[in-house]
Amino acid sequence: MLTDDWKVLAVKAQNIYEDSLKLTLELFPFDDPETLKVFNGLPSARGQSVTDFGSPAKFPIEEYLKKLPENVKAVTEKEPIELIRDLKAGKITAVEVLKCYYHAAIFASRLVNCVHEFLPVESLEAAKKLDADFSKSSQLPLFGLPVSIKEMIKFKGRPVTHGSLCYLDRIADDHGDMVKILYSNGAVPFVRTTNPQSLMMLECESLSHGRTVNPFNSDLTSGGSSGGEGAINGIHASPLGFGSDIGGSIRCPSAFNGIWGMRTTVGRLPCMDYYSCQRGSESILSVTGPLTRSLGLLELSIKTIIDSKPWLIDPSTSAIEWKTPKFGKKIRIGILSHDGICTPQPPIARALKEVKEKLSKLPNVELVEFKPYDHSRSFAILGHLYFEDGGADTRATLGTGEPLLEQTKWAIEGAKELTVHEIWKWNLEKQAYRKEYLQHWLSYNNDDGEELDGVIAPVFAGPAAKHRTAKYWGYTAQWNCVDYPVLVFPVTKVDPELDQPVKDYTPLNDHDKYNYEAYDSPESFLNAPVNLGVVGLRNTEEKLIEIGKVLKSILD
Amino acid sequence: MLTDDWKVLAVKAQNIYEDSLKLTLELFPFDDPETLKVFNGLPSARGQSVTDFGSPAKFPIEEYLKKLPENVKAVTEKEPIELIRDLKAGKITAVEVLKCYYHAAIFASRLVNCVHEFLPVESLEAAKKLDADFSKSSQLPLFGLPVSIKEMIKFKGRPVTHGSLCYLDRIADDHGDMVKILYSNGAVPFVRTTNPQSLMMLECESLSHGRTVNPFNSDLTSGGSSGGEGAINGIHASPLGFGSDIGGSIRCPSAFNGIWGMRTTVGRLPCMDYYSCQRGSESILSVTGPLTRSLGLLELSIKTIIDSKPWLIDPSTSAIEWKTPKFGKKIRIGILSHDGICTPQPPIARALKEVKEKLSKLPNVELVEFKPYDHSRSFAILGHLYFEDGGADTRATLGTGEPLLEQTKWAIEGAKELTVHEIWKWNLEKQAYRKEYLQHWLSYNNDDGEELDGVIAPVFAGPAAKHRTAKYWGYTAQWNCVDYPVLVFPVTKVDPELDQPVKDYTPLNDHDKYNYEAYDSPESFLNAPVNLGVVGLRNTEEKLIEIGKVLKSILD
Repeated sequence: MLTDDWKVLAVKAQNIYEDSLKLTLELFPFDDPETLKVFNGLPSARGQSVTDFGSPAKFPIEEYLKKLPENVKAVTEKEPIELIRDLKAGKITAVEVLKCYYHAAIFASRLVNCVHEFLPVESLEAAKKLDADFSKSSQLPLFGLPVSIKEMIKFKGRPVTHGSLCYLDRIADDHGDMVKILYSNGAVPFVRTTNPQSLMMLECESLSHGRTVNPFNSDLTSGGSSGGEGAINGIHASPLGFGSDIGGSIRCPSAFNGIWGMRTTVGRLPCMDYYSCQRGSESILSVTGPLTRSLGLLELSIKTIIDSKPWLIDPSTSAIEWKTPKFGKKIRIGILSHDGICTPQPPIARALKEVKEKLSKLPNVELVEFKPYDHSRSFAILGHLYFEDGGADTRATLGTGEPLLEQTKWAIEGAKELTVHEIWKWNLEKQAYRKEYLQHWLSYNNDDGEELDGVIAPVFAGPAAKHRTAKYWGYTAQWNCVDYPVLVFPVTKVDPELDQPVKDYTPLNDHDKYNYEAYDSPESFLNAPVNLGVVGLRNTEEKLIEIGKVLKSILD
Repeated sequence: MLTDDWKVLAVKAQNIYEDSLKLTLELFPFDDPETLKVFNGLPSARGQSVTDFGSPAKFPIEEYLKKLPENVKAVTEKEPIELIRDLKAGKITAVEVLKCYYHAAIFASRLVNCVHEFLPVESLEAAKKLDADFSKSSQLPLFGLPVSIKEMIKFKGRPVTHGSLCYLDRIADDHGDMVKILYSNGAVPFVRTTNPQSLMMLECESLSHGRTVNPFNSDLTSGGSSGGEGAINGIHASPLGFGSDIGGSIRCPSAFNGIWGMRTTVGRLPCMDYYSCQRGSESILSVTGPLTRSLGLLELSIKTIIDSKPWLIDPSTSAIEWKTPKFGKKIRIGILSHDGICTPQPPIARALKEVKEKLSKLPNVELVEFKPYDHSRSFAILGHLYFEDGGADTRATLGTGEPLLEQTKWAIEGAKELTVHEIWKWNLEKQAYRKEYLQHWLSYNNDDGEELDGVIAPVFAGPAAKHRTAKYWGYTAQWNCVDYPVLVFPVTKVDPELDQPVKDYTPLNDHDKYNYEAYDSPESFLNAPVNLGVVGLRNTEEKLIEIGKVLKSILD
């Protein structure tokens, strides 16, 4: 255990960011010296210390789009799949693209505090190498694409803290498997993004970086735990990022920042070497997946990783090759409007309605009302299995005196250390529930025995929550409990007129009351993206992406 | 908990067998009344009680082949794949086949004590239905094939004890998933086979049935825990059976009885609803797989189950379809002659040498010496994770006063209840070892990056062990630790001349000494089959079967 006072460590953590920023600006200087002044004048979400959340702009993305140099935006605002095409065609070099994304990320990091550290030396070396070996490198599927990675993913030579200062001296001796796969496919990891204390919150606050705010409205959270990824991709300062998800940590920040994101099935993509608390706990496993504004890139990135045969790298990965999905006569889609516990807030209810209406007009889609199957059982199961040790491992991270943040406390309070037999009991509960849920899903089979291809559902009870208020995990954690993949997709934005709070509503329970009261007025959530998710049976990632294409075609 | 004295329960268990035998003989009487006398005159491996092991013939299979009516043998000795062909062609009915296999199983049950109970009513009903609906049923892949199942597999309306008397009143409310899949593919479950107390032994002794002896030499064990399956298939009184394997329980009885058997990868075939102690323990998972004298049927049965999309039945199953395996320029096979701990006894060493020599003559095979990678680490990992509760769940089965058998005691002694953090620690050890083992395997890749397709290795340090002496699990449990599939294949028999004990051998350690001394003379193991296994990377079952075909072609 470290004996340094946590405040000393917090300064050290801040210096990691500051030092990497300085180095980045040295290696990738702004073209116009004026830009540095513009940058320094941006309203900052980074304060004087990690407990000072600065003075971010109300709508950071507006500042970003206004202040970021046009030549940078010409690259970073390009559809990423087209950018890869340009890179492969030699119209732009990997180093040039990297430079633009660095300038974007530097702006974003100040505006919303989404960057843990920049990786200028490693990324420049990689990009130069790709450019130098263009004829060969340009064949790689992700040639020259800068990619952001959540801080908890091992990066060689860097401390991996997953939001806890006590781990600041734990230096990764090697890259994580995903980092290696990204490199070997031509991608260029360029920033490590922020994640919250303990990783077990749907927001992004830590004593290591402070708070990552939502680029669309800084009164709101960027979501978590992949909050840095959500924000940097939401603002378009990264074309693609990877996070992890054990209770909603990819989906919630994807939804809150208006982008695509996927919680994959356990074992589909390699992540056994990601760091976190509770390592070695296998009852509920975390997964990895992409967060990106581009559905095409989401597909390309997942396909690329699977084509790399990750099962020959991480033995916890299943040997399931990428497969072209098959549908029946129609694409059969369920609509889950309510989980039986918590009524979606008006913008979410409206999004569901709109998506349903638009889908109902497609001749090749069959819509079905999908009822929740006892989602409260997931609460009990996860409530026991998330923290089998009663939260001891998480609490042990506070040995430096680091304060327990309110939402970490909220996540672990009530957790109690299980005996071996209690773990078994809850695993059996989980197995039984998974089996029943599968039967429930298949009860919607049509007369030809065709199952539902996907179920559209809320990702969260509302749009991005106000800071320190995101507490209801039900709409995400449900699918971790049964281990179903989910593709999050953007639908709309909060509408001040259409999304008025419901009046005279009688809440169903305390969760419902909390979430009902949290949505006081659309003005509080102005500009916030509204996303939904499409859920599939295990290992149907390819199918969900095809459904995503249909959704994109009607929602764009 | 039951309050009955265990001896009362043991009689009840014996009556299950006796009653089902009586009913079987009523529904399927012998054609010739003399046969009943012959049957009653067979030397019996069933004694007066469960602790009396009767007076089995020294070589039960000789009695079996001599005494079983020729018209029965004409059916039961037919290659099972050809039998299915005859069934499908209408040359013989499902009821006729069932009757023959019942007569064979009845003989076998007396000779080697391999049957827990017969299922005459259910199987007759199923066979009649198949015959009645011939035009449709005959399209099913396993049309009319009698199949034996290990007692621990749930069968509707029957108690499931997995070898512990305390569970005699636990009646299955439904068939297990595998039973349903077998039925729906035209198979006819017809006997439930014996399994040992606690399932955690490589022999087959319980206070529920007594002892299942080896059909080739009754001084030797049939192996375990799927000992009944090993024996009934070894003697050819069942064409196909299903067992389970968490430490060798399919492979060891396959090897000891000279048949094919497969430990599949975790999640390839459905078995989450099989009963055992330690249910809900997920750190090391049991798997299911076939035991059969027919490689063709082994392939057909696995393919049939996978084609049934078990992932839509048991959500712990991976959605991996049956795939035609691809090899490189050559089939690349490693030979693991020694695990670094325990020297194989002379018959096994000879079998390895013979197989190697024969394979070396094939132009399409490349042979490589495969070194073990620190197999003792598996001991430590499994030693902690098999009994996370220190064996408490197993000990709790003795509340009826049922004595703890020596080998159950041996398996659980030393086990200590783990804390949550100890479970995590050992899971991490397991994950690390799996990753290193994969890298070790891939270190044998050739210059074209082609990996080894399989590694041929001992399944046990010797041929079938003498009763109550099978204690070294290293050659099987190793692959449970890393979760690799293994196909067990028959090679030869113990040869009194060629398989003389090694003289003046200095054992490497206590395990080695024990196994060295256990092989006192080939005469003790006369007639015992000698098998080996071919191990593959996770989810390469199809590849192993193709290698099995090559092995069959040179060994038949």
